[in-house]
Amino acid sequence: MSKIKIALVQMHVEKDKYKNLETANTFIKKVAQEGCDLAILPEMFTTPYKTDNFPIYAEFEGEDSFISISNMAKENSIYLVGGSIPEKDEKNLVYNTSYVFDRNGNNIGKHRKVHLFDIDVEGGQSFKESDTLTPGNNITVFDTEFGKIGLCICFDFRFPELARLMVQKGAKTIIVPAAFNMTTGPAHWDLMFRSRAIDNQVYAIGCAPSRDINGPYVSYGNSIVTTPWGDILYKMDEKEGYKILELDLEYVDKIRKELPLISARRLDLYELKEK
Amino acid sequence: MSKIKIALVQMHVEKDKYKNLETANTFIKKVAQEGCDLAILPEMFTTPYKTDNFPIYAEFEGEDSFISISNMAKENSIYLVGGSIPEKDEKNLVYNTSYVFDRNGNNIGKHRKVHLFDIDVEGGQSFKESDTLTPGNNITVFDTEFGKIGLCICFDFRFPELARLMVQKGAKTIIVPAAFNMTTGPAHWDLMFRSRAIDNQVYAIGCAPSRDINGPYVSYGNSIVTTPWGDILYKMDEKEGYKILELDLEYVDKIRKELPLISARRLDLYELKEK
Repeated sequence: MSKIKIALVQMHVEKDKYKNLETANTFIKKVAQEGCDLAILPEMFTTPYKTDNFPIYAEFEGEDSFISISNMAKENSIYLVGGSIPEKDEKNLVYNTSYVFDRNGNNIGKHRKVHLFDIDVEGGQSFKESDTLTPGNNITVFDTEFGKIGLCICFDFRFPELARLMVQKGAKTIIVPAAFNMTTGPAHWDLMFRSRAIDNQVYAIGCAPSRDINGPYVSYGNSIVTTPWGDILYKMDEKEGYKILELDLEYVDKIRKELPLISARRLDLYELKEK
Repeated sequence: MSKIKIALVQMHVEKDKYKNLETANTFIKKVAQEGCDLAILPEMFTTPYKTDNFPIYAEFEGEDSFISISNMAKENSIYLVGGSIPEKDEKNLVYNTSYVFDRNGNNIGKHRKVHLFDIDVEGGQSFKESDTLTPGNNITVFDTEFGKIGLCICFDFRFPELARLMVQKGAKTIIVPAAFNMTTGPAHWDLMFRSRAIDNQVYAIGCAPSRDINGPYVSYGNSIVTTPWGDILYKMDEKEGYKILELDLEYVDKIRKELPLISARRLDLYELKEK
């Protein structure tokens, strides 16, 4: 099937985890009723984005948030990229993890953020995820009736190697739950999604929490869909809301043929591979 | 030395090779008098950009155009990235080649375009360099008193692997003689330079011929310098002219420290290397 209806859910995140899950649930019901095939929630949608919070909000795989997201997919018969949540393992290490569920609520994808967000911009944003988080070690592509979809989280998408590796694994769409801030958002958000999209000739999709100027970390919002030609198909503003868009995956093949940025790579000269 | 004055020479290209060399010479004298350290000429500045022309205008290394460009560097005591010219070898194969000379006129760099430009955009630009050109096989970084500088030609810069490999070889600046057209220019020129600059935290510099709407291939012009933060430092319009700009290479180190897109690569998970 070449056409897929995706939904961006740019929700407001507050302190109460169960309230956040309920907000997500309400949005997911709504976008499913409006015919979407695959919905996307934002990065860390169960907790305000703050390193201290992550261990407190963290759950083992299969606990409340996992079950709740799985149920949203199953009850509405849609694919659901469950933004991300703090996940803990048996060693009590905490990860920034995105779970993906199919129309039956089965977990078909899992990505632990592999590049932790440690920045310190003079006069701008500082943040150090590695204070409380552990990075994942996998490059993630999951399979659907609409073909293969790459998945990574926010700062991961800064690294061109990761998007390219997803494409080498067959991705024609890349989904990125994310939360840029008021320093990097205006400077680089559109640029990153547009450039990854044209360089890899994929649909690149970013889904962020809505902006809360009273939160511990102010999300830029501006959830976005960019096309394989590098255009912005749609961009939200900073407010809470959702948007459903239809993507034509045959357009990926058309652009890759006209402007051969994938097939003309000089794979005899250079090689990018997973170690 | 952390500060370098570079000059973009966005010259008009016409049919007469020697007239083009003379135009280049006039500009180079001028920018040298105005204090530039390194000047850049456009892609294929000795010939109108047309596949049929390349074998006709092609020269062996060390012939007239090579000598002429070397002399421009030496006489003006500047570094000179000699845009590109059609080069032929002993087998009569033709390459799109950029030669670099130091302040003494010594050839310190040579890049043969490795990704040939073969595109066919529906309702837009079609072009097939491989009709008459042979691709090079090297990734090029040359050394100067201002540190290491990466060099590639136009379509080469579309491929994120190439810029990344230059950075892995120590480049803090990347220079790209180029000639986008009226389809890809408005769509992708700024985007490509800005994104390669921020992804690799380098100064990325594109130098194009001026626009000639009566030429066989209409150059977009818009010679550009982008900063390690992904901003446009300066962009020319479509007309013939030049621009001198001072770049501070310490800014590369500052940005790489604040937003660690080079050091935070997960080199334990993926590897990009020359084969």
